[in-house]
Amino acid sequence: MTGTASEAARALLAADNILILTHRRPDGDTTGCAGALCRGLRQLGKTAYILENVELTRRYEGLIAPCYAPADFVPDCVVTTDIADYGLLTDNAEPYRDRLDVVLDHHRSNAMAAPVRVVRETAGACAELIADVLDEMGVTLTADIAECLYIALSTDTGCFRYSNTTPDTLRIAARCLEAGVDGGEINRRLFEVKSWPRFQMERIIFDTMEFLMDGKIALVIIRRADINRTGADMDDLDSIASLTRQIEGVQVGITITENTDGTSKISVRTTKEVDASAICAKCGGGGHLRAGGASLSCGPDAARDQIVDAARQVYAESELA
Amino acid sequence: MTGTASEAARALLAADNILILTHRRPDGDTTGCAGALCRGLRQLGKTAYILENVELTRRYEGLIAPCYAPADFVPDCVVTTDIADYGLLTDNAEPYRDRLDVVLDHHRSNAMAAPVRVVRETAGACAELIADVLDEMGVTLTADIAECLYIALSTDTGCFRYSNTTPDTLRIAARCLEAGVDGGEINRRLFEVKSWPRFQMERIIFDTMEFLMDGKIALVIIRRADINRTGADMDDLDSIASLTRQIEGVQVGITITENTDGTSKISVRTTKEVDASAICAKCGGGGHLRAGGASLSCGPDAARDQIVDAARQVYAESELA
Repeated sequence: MTGTASEAARALLAADNILILTHRRPDGDTTGCAGALCRGLRQLGKTAYILENVELTRRYEGLIAPCYAPADFVPDCVVTTDIADYGLLTDNAEPYRDRLDVVLDHHRSNAMAAPVRVVRETAGACAELIADVLDEMGVTLTADIAECLYIALSTDTGCFRYSNTTPDTLRIAARCLEAGVDGGEINRRLFEVKSWPRFQMERIIFDTMEFLMDGKIALVIIRRADINRTGADMDDLDSIASLTRQIEGVQVGITITENTDGTSKISVRTTKEVDASAICAKCGGGGHLRAGGASLSCGPDAARDQIVDAARQVYAESELA
Repeated sequence: MTGTASEAARALLAADNILILTHRRPDGDTTGCAGALCRGLRQLGKTAYILENVELTRRYEGLIAPCYAPADFVPDCVVTTDIADYGLLTDNAEPYRDRLDVVLDHHRSNAMAAPVRVVRETAGACAELIADVLDEMGVTLTADIAECLYIALSTDTGCFRYSNTTPDTLRIAARCLEAGVDGGEINRRLFEVKSWPRFQMERIIFDTMEFLMDGKIALVIIRRADINRTGADMDDLDSIASLTRQIEGVQVGITITENTDGTSKISVRTTKEVDASAICAKCGGGGHLRAGGASLSCGPDAARDQIVDAARQVYAESELA
């Protein structure tokens, strides 16, 4: 059961002091949605804030950091944006866990409860829903609100490249450009410019990439020593697991990251021929059809052997079937 | 002076046998426009063909190759799509040079003459104009027409990433998705998958990239031996000159390609701080503010010294100014 954008708008219009929550490891969608909603509510004369998110990276800082709630803020309405599950609430959101008023999301798996709960599964970005809620409330799409929405839309759809991009994604982005957003400059910053650490990490990755099974499997190990040497941080390593799958003929891209404690994080990306979650399940992990993951307590080289075996098994099984 | 989409529509509707021309080194916009227009005219019962373009690469083959005109086709109306200048007409278009009926383009520099000449300078892709012409003629946007338009829009705007993307670009792309275009799959093929030769060329480029002036200048030499060894063709080297500018802090990206005869082709890409055409002009070339080029009769290493000198001079002059 999902509500409508106009129900959400009514609930928000009935409130005076609104607190907006974002999810752990905040991305462009959760921060863009929160930033747009907060600014829109303020335009209507409401007192609105965003709860601080300590995991915020510099990439999305401007969207929400200027709107952080003071410590003594007492909301009469708590809203979540793009948060699929209670486990994705930040630690400081714990007091609001059982008193959420409005849930706004687009994840099919959404497991949050609230009097008003709107989950638009068809949306490429949660920002499509937020745009409708803002329209329903009568908010004017100013340049600052449009910039938040645009960043949410573009980051969640690979800059309008992925199959989750909808006609609505594109039409709302068109309105954002009309509202004064400099899409070219934003996209250059978000999608084109490689930081020095990122550039060096990519160079290492492409130089050490290993190909198996006639190039159907590509495998990369991201070693802690390289991360330390290049000074790469979370932003620099963002979506680095997708690099393996970019090469012609690769069906299974495996990225093994050596954690600080010497254990291994495995990310598997596949094309439509292979089930990523089936491969990861053999190593105690899981995921979706085209993207899966697993955590192993061993080091990256032992992890390599396990996940390669798992991939080979999945291939063997599918050939038997 | 530029005409309107409805004037172009009227001229096309008045004709029965229409021939469409594409430009040399055909890209996604010229082929997508021609493909969409040809299919749209056929939907209206017209006899429409596209003149063969011998430089067509496999990437855009499906858009126009199936519509090539038979040798004995006699048009009563000749249309150009996305062709800015007579020098960009293919050799086999020579007989039509002085009898063009409709010119459809979006280049500010368009220098073509015709009874109906529509140049929409504000459009990110010529396909925006074509979409209007199709609408004016009453063509239904079927999936095959929409795919041509979508590819034209996405390739000319870096998949909606560049600053030339307009609200119209995005709204027409939205209609294309609604008409059944699989944008995710198209974009994966056009923008994400790297061929083996491309992957190897990028590896060479990133390994040998040279940085000057505290990283403000990045320089790459693409040697003929590497091209031959990797088997890279025109498609594989497409927009390879943009790689240098992707790195944080780089203001001037220089790519020198060794031609088959040992001479050098220089491409310069700059960020907003530096004028690319000013640098290229010092080596006998020219171009735009952020993209320029030059041809030198010397080999790539001598060309390197000349163009680096030119870049340093432009920096020195701007500091004096």
